[in-house]
Amino acid sequence: MKYGFLGPVGTFTQAALLAWRPAASAEHVACPSVNVALAQVRSGELDAAMVPIENSVEGGVSATLDALAAGEPLRVIGEVLVPITFVLAAPEGVEFSEIRAVGTHPHGWAQVRGWMAANLPDAVYVPTLSTAAAATDLLAAHTDTAPAYDAAVCAPVAAAGLTVLADDIGDNKTAVTRFVLVARPGWLPTPTGADKTTIVVYQHTDRSGGLLELLEHFAARDINMTRLESRPTGAAMGSYCFSIDFEGHVRDERVGEALMGLHRVAAQVVFLGSYPRADGQAAATTEAASNARFRQAQDWLRGLRDEPAEGATSGLRRSGRS
Amino acid sequence: MKYGFLGPVGTFTQAALLAWRPAASAEHVACPSVNVALAQVRSGELDAAMVPIENSVEGGVSATLDALAAGEPLRVIGEVLVPITFVLAAPEGVEFSEIRAVGTHPHGWAQVRGWMAANLPDAVYVPTLSTAAAATDLLAAHTDTAPAYDAAVCAPVAAAGLTVLADDIGDNKTAVTRFVLVARPGWLPTPTGADKTTIVVYQHTDRSGGLLELLEHFAARDINMTRLESRPTGAAMGSYCFSIDFEGHVRDERVGEALMGLHRVAAQVVFLGSYPRADGQAAATTEAASNARFRQAQDWLRGLRDEPAEGATSGLRRSGRS
Amino acid sequence: MKYGFLGPVGTFTQAALLAWRPAASAEHVACPSVNVALAQVRSGELDAAMVPIENSVEGGVSATLDALAAGEPLRVIGEVLVPITFVLAAPEGVEFSEIRAVGTHPHGWAQVRGWMAANLPDAVYVPTLSTAAAATDLLAAHTDTAPAYDAAVCAPVAAAGLTVLADDIGDNKTAVTRFVLVARPGWLPTPTGADKTTIVVYQHTDRSGGLLELLEHFAARDINMTRLESRPTGAAMGSYCFSIDFEGHVRDERVGEALMGLHRVAAQVVFLGSYPRADGQAAATTEAASNARFRQAQDWLRGLRDEPAEGATSGLRRSGRS
Amino acid sequence: MKYGFLGPVGTFTQAALLAWRPAASAEHVACPSVNVALAQVRSGELDAAMVPIENSVEGGVSATLDALAAGEPLRVIGEVLVPITFVLAAPEGVEFSEIRAVGTHPHGWAQVRGWMAANLPDAVYVPTLSTAAAATDLLAAHTDTAPAYDAAVCAPVAAAGLTVLADDIGDNKTAVTRFVLVARPGWLPTPTGADKTTIVVYQHTDRSGGLLELLEHFAARDINMTRLESRPTGAAMGSYCFSIDFEGHVRDERVGEALMGLHRVAAQVVFLGSYPRADGQAAATTEAASNARFRQAQDWLRGLRDEPAEGATSGLRRSGRS
Repeated sequence: MKYGFLGPVGTFTQAALLAWRPAASAEHVACPSVNVALAQVRSGELDAAMVPIENSVEGGVSATLDALAAGEPLRVIGEVLVPITFVLAAPEGVEFSEIRAVGTHPHGWAQVRGWMAANLPDAVYVPTLSTAAAATDLLAAHTDTAPAYDAAVCAPVAAAGLTVLADDIGDNKTAVTRFVLVARPGWLPTPTGADKTTIVVYQHTDRSGGLLELLEHFAARDINMTRLESRPTGAAMGSYCFSIDFEGHVRDERVGEALMGLHRVAAQVVFLGSYPRADGQAAATTEAASNARFRQAQDWLRGLRDEPAEGATSGLRRSGRS
Repeated sequence: MKYGFLGPVGTFTQAALLAWRPAASAEHVACPSVNVALAQVRSGELDAAMVPIENSVEGGVSATLDALAAGEPLRVIGEVLVPITFVLAAPEGVEFSEIRAVGTHPHGWAQVRGWMAANLPDAVYVPTLSTAAAATDLLAAHTDTAPAYDAAVCAPVAAAGLTVLADDIGDNKTAVTRFVLVARPGWLPTPTGADKTTIVVYQHTDRSGGLLELLEHFAARDINMTRLESRPTGAAMGSYCFSIDFEGHVRDERVGEALMGLHRVAAQVVFLGSYPRADGQAAATTEAASNARFRQAQDWLRGLRDEPAEGATSGLRRSGRS
Repeated sequence: MKYGFLGPVGTFTQAALLAWRPAASAEHVACPSVNVALAQVRSGELDAAMVPIENSVEGGVSATLDALAAGEPLRVIGEVLVPITFVLAAPEGVEFSEIRAVGTHPHGWAQVRGWMAANLPDAVYVPTLSTAAAATDLLAAHTDTAPAYDAAVCAPVAAAGLTVLADDIGDNKTAVTRFVLVARPGWLPTPTGADKTTIVVYQHTDRSGGLLELLEHFAARDINMTRLESRPTGAAMGSYCFSIDFEGHVRDERVGEALMGLHRVAAQVVFLGSYPRADGQAAATTEAASNARFRQAQDWLRGLRDEPAEGATSGLRRSGRS
Repeated sequence: MKYGFLGPVGTFTQAALLAWRPAASAEHVACPSVNVALAQVRSGELDAAMVPIENSVEGGVSATLDALAAGEPLRVIGEVLVPITFVLAAPEGVEFSEIRAVGTHPHGWAQVRGWMAANLPDAVYVPTLSTAAAATDLLAAHTDTAPAYDAAVCAPVAAAGLTVLADDIGDNKTAVTRFVLVARPGWLPTPTGADKTTIVVYQHTDRSGGLLELLEHFAARDINMTRLESRPTGAAMGSYCFSIDFEGHVRDERVGEALMGLHRVAAQVVFLGSYPRADGQAAATTEAASNARFRQAQDWLRGLRDEPAEGATSGLRRSGRS
């Protein structure tokens, strides 16, 4: 088995993959971008890939949301939550007072902005392709390709070989990033009672009040949404699709009926998978939306519909319709 | 075959039954009340009964609504619309100027009140058990049981043997009464594309916003209601159930799903039948709620659910879940 | 002061008026019908009239609902709840075993049907204009206008002069009728925190999903409905208006906003009054719909709107818009 | 007057500011980040600042959305739409075949990914702080701080001094970015009939079905949303606020009522301004939600409430309440 992750080595995404026990004995492959990782899953080079989807401070990861929504179908088969902590690291011998420029990924920079304003107000920010790359490049600082910064903001695990000048410098101490494991379609995780489902919904442009109508399909079945992102379709300013996570499994009756409802009214519904929640929290729903109640309703309806059609058995029916 | 109707002979209900072609060669039996008619259908003495359910001027016929909702299940299998016109009739020899009191059923009186105020402002009103009975009793006017009125308000057909003193005296010239033909369960009229379904819904008393929630189950499937009556359950002041007619047939996908939705959230749903509309008007619905669209959604969902469960075929799944 | 009531003397309506303390020293006038009572309020002959509006067993009183909705505006200024109990009464000397026919108002008959079926299964039913009239007429039983029945079903108070053969014969022992006191517009009962408001709403016929839209105006302001009756407008089969009672007073902010919302979307809203509830039960609503919260929102909005218009004070504005 | 923009010189944001006629004669100041620009507006160093808020391909600009929502209140007073076109530019003498690495801002890269995959599949991507900085840095290519790339992706206007090797290389030819002009509170653009309003809404965490409830406040007043972004509050995974643009002006009656409704049910509503739309398109609303209809409803309500309280004028009222 071959699992990819958004690289390089030392990213939070690698930490997420290391936390996914079933991948322990598999080969792990660093990918240069989310797009590359998912393309290699689609092509079969990888069996699955771990990619970031949502950060508690920065919000949805657009690159992942867009790469999942477009192209050959994929399936999310699991999720991992990783607490995000940052360190400030520099090559051995560099003093804190010598730092003039700091390199990191824009998402990392956004999460340490407060600390930087308080502690290194004059430092120049240099964007890098990832937080891990910011650190790695510093290790090559004595070479010709020396980076244009003196210290990196990165995950603790990525600071190997560097000196950590400051620890836990994130502005939000409870920051968490959510990662999803993505595979090709072909199987479906078994419902556990504590599942999530991820979809993307494209609206008919000529259908006003569209989002409200979509949400009513969830509300009518007592289904709780846990994430809603609008993403531009690119067609025109104001043309959006919706990336949605909600509680429950496609095999739950209430989820199946809601998905069918969306399928009827939307231009397109992309199903991206049902999978166990990382936190194991059971779905918040109601007795009226339980599988048992749905099945009672189905049995009742079947009974009503199973009456023979007119003309079958008696004069009343025969004469009544002839 | 034996068909009952709300008697006596000469009522609008008999006119409705005469208009029901399949009953042409059957025996017709006048019943003294809606309750008696439906009880005899329930007991098997009658094969079916024609009863009034809704008047365009007076509204729902409470006796029918209540008798349908309670007791052994019944099925509405058809409907008939009858234009309502009234005449003022008196025994031969009675002059218009001699009329001091007028007999008719309270519903009839309600529909000629304007004409009476204009033409016989001083006439006393005497209630009778039916408009037809008001006329019939006048025919016995020379006997000991002479009625306490001089003229009757009744259907033209009921005035046989009397002199019509004034024609078409209803205040509303477009008044129509809707009658339904009621039988025991056991068969179901075939969907025609122009059907109605009748139900009674009892709410859980501890579920606030209840009617809104019920109506949303129709709106979410683009189902049009044609009649809504609240009826007291008798349990307490303010405790109501809802008698509802809506467009579509229980075999229509959108109707089936709506009924299941009501069944899940309501205390009880009494199904009273799906039957062709008297006016043959096709259901007003949308493409998104068509049977074709529902079936596409079902097929799509089935495809999503049919993926094998984890562990079935590959190392990814096996290791992923072990 | 002159108060009317739906007569004759001995009706439950008179009992309701007697229970209305402020009318204790006023003149009480029996009216032959709800229509007459309300017409005399409109014309000024009466200062107010007590009429039945809703029965816990029989439902809304159509005659009252229709008479309130049409014609010169009226105002409900109070309500009274009266427990309904029936007796079987006959002239002195008449034995129970001699009863062949029973007279009463159709609403009364509906409420003792079960008792009659069990105790006098063969008795013929004779409708009368009121339960009290059924009793009164029996007192004249020795005259030429003897009624066509042997015993009356009426309120205990109406049985004066007759012998009570059976007591408390109503099928539903908790039956209650709700009466309203109706006056001309011109003043408004002070809000008490435990009020009701009564309205009639006519929909635009070309606006589909109409009832749902109306109910959402209540739900959006956490307003609880206590009665909803659909009444035909008479225009055509299926053309209905809605008679609605809900919790709260027109001077409550949430009620005012809901009424304005209905006024905007409906063809017509007839306001029939805000008045203290007979049972003194406070309105079930939420903090978010409290007067305090509404006023905070109004203050906040006023602050936003009170900014001076562009061009007033500075170059930014001046140049920005010139 | 002093206007800031997200710099450096040559960005699309500067193009937006140049298109804002009222700023023609004012001083224009390039700011290193959206945060700095808005901080200087807040502090008074700038009178206003032009910042990007939404891109038709990439979606909402998180940095702007977050900087507007937090901190001292600001007001959007106008918007500008700028078509986005990209060029590939390199220092004089660099051949297309020599390009090994390309520098640009991540948002720029996202919009030319397709073109790059087709035309420069082996080029390495180097992130820069802005598309304009990618170009500017190339002009210093002969100095010690030579950038680590050979060509820049930037706006045509930013390519001055460089050679354009390829024109109009954006994957989406209709891409547009929307910019907003932000000032301190203190005045309000006059309603034009073609306005937008921008708000941020924080929900009470203990109020389920929250987004649906928020959207119903718009739907109930026929208000059309043009942008909805969920943004994490940072408090916890799954804790979101909503950044919303909708049609209409705070001085429009329907908008005022909707804002009050949100203010009542939400934890916080941040008002970010009402301003003329760049495209001049009138609000899509209905007659029922027009200012005229709102004012009729207000007048009607005022009439109902203006009745004197009981006790004021007559015995009915006095006795009725004593």
